Amino acid sequence: MQFRSSDIDTMDTHRRAAFVNSLSGFKSANLVGTANAQGHTNVAIMSSAVHLGSTPPLLALVIRPGEEARHTLNNILDTGCYSLNHVTPDIIEQAHQTAARYPADVSEFAATGLTPVWVEEFGAPMVAEAGIKLGLCLREHQVLAINGTHLIIGEVVLADVPSAWILEEGAVDLSLANSVALSGLDTYWQARALKRMAYAKPDVPPRALTGSDRPEKHAP
Amino acid sequence: MQFRSSDIDTMDTHRRAAFVNSLSGFKSANLVGTANAQGHTNVAIMSSAVHLGSTPPLLALVIRPGEEARHTLNNILDTGCYSLNHVTPDIIEQAHQTAARYPADVSEFAATGLTPVWVEEFGAPMVAEAGIKLGLCLREHQVLAINGTHLIIGEVVLADVPSAWILEEGAVDLSLANSVALSGLDTYWQARALKRMAYAKPDVPPRALTGSDRPEKHAP
Repeated sequence: MQFRSSDIDTMDTHRRAAFVNSLSGFKSANLVGTANAQGHTNVAIMSSAVHLGSTPPLLALVIRPGEEARHTLNNILDTGCYSLNHVTPDIIEQAHQTAARYPADVSEFAATGLTPVWVEEFGAPMVAEAGIKLGLCLREHQVLAINGTHLIIGEVVLADVPSAWILEEGAVDLSLANSVALSGLDTYWQARALKRMAYAKPDVPPRALTGSDRPEKHAP
Repeated sequence: MQFRSSDIDTMDTHRRAAFVNSLSGFKSANLVGTANAQGHTNVAIMSSAVHLGSTPPLLALVIRPGEEARHTLNNILDTGCYSLNHVTPDIIEQAHQTAARYPADVSEFAATGLTPVWVEEFGAPMVAEAGIKLGLCLREHQVLAINGTHLIIGEVVLADVPSAWILEEGAVDLSLANSVALSGLDTYWQARALKRMAYAKPDVPPRALTGSDRPEKHAP
């Protein structure tokens, strides 16, 4: 079925949100940990992390105004730091529950049963129960004129990843890390690796790597 | 193991790219279809699509300068339109191969065996073999000062999704669509749904929905 702009525009608000949120495909499922200047903690589920570059290591987050994430946004802007923590199957319920509109004086850590953990020389709490844990420093903030969403660009200054999860060429194996994916607004997925592909070259047919292969270069 | 900025900075370039690209978690796997003003087609694998909002339906793409995607970027800026097509397990090899540095006069459609398909009143080719197929119009373009990457914001003006893939509340079921996920630079994954969660409320414990449940509202 072909949905055109007029079909999407005339959908009921909740239906349109569910539909459009599922169109981009699978997304990351991260818990964003912050604290305010007084050390009061906050944690919020987000699926909008996107890789911007590796030198320096930069990730962007899209945060919509007026949503449950407003305390997170304020804390990031106030303190300049935040953590990104991969959701695993064991904490899906708690992670999703952080999206509830708790009052500002309630920490979602306490409300959902997740455990804040502080790492030396980093000013935001991480989530003890999560898999991969990242610490980021705010590098750029802008409000996108087109719809008022906030673009938060941060540099990864800390990555807590057991070495057993790191593959020979440097990538983290997300199945060993037990990371889950998110789709739409509410569905959590476990992933099974289908293929790791060799670096693509114009004059060489595509080739899936086996466990013993080591890619020469990176792509895409 | 804790990696600090100095550990990441001193990694070999390819190792750092593999490591940092895997940190955000699972990503979407989309083929971006474009044409230049003369109708010469191009298709490129991208994993940087991110949801910006549903009213209007906006997605952003991050495109790095100087990479294989430069023809795609030029075509989007020239024509103002592009398609986003979900990769499925059957076309992983072809999809990944589009990342090879083909000369500008070679269409990755022809080179990889993917089939361009034109939809009425839309100026960019879609990928016939893909699952979900979207048509987007460019709404905003900016170069991010921090590292020179291009942020491309587009409005979904066309969504080709069989109605059998759409759940009662409006979301597309990505397992019915057979969409795959991508991690890092080269690994493609199939996903299995673990849980769909009810809308989170502060005074209600988190609850996984069963097939017959219908969520009242949307989150996160």
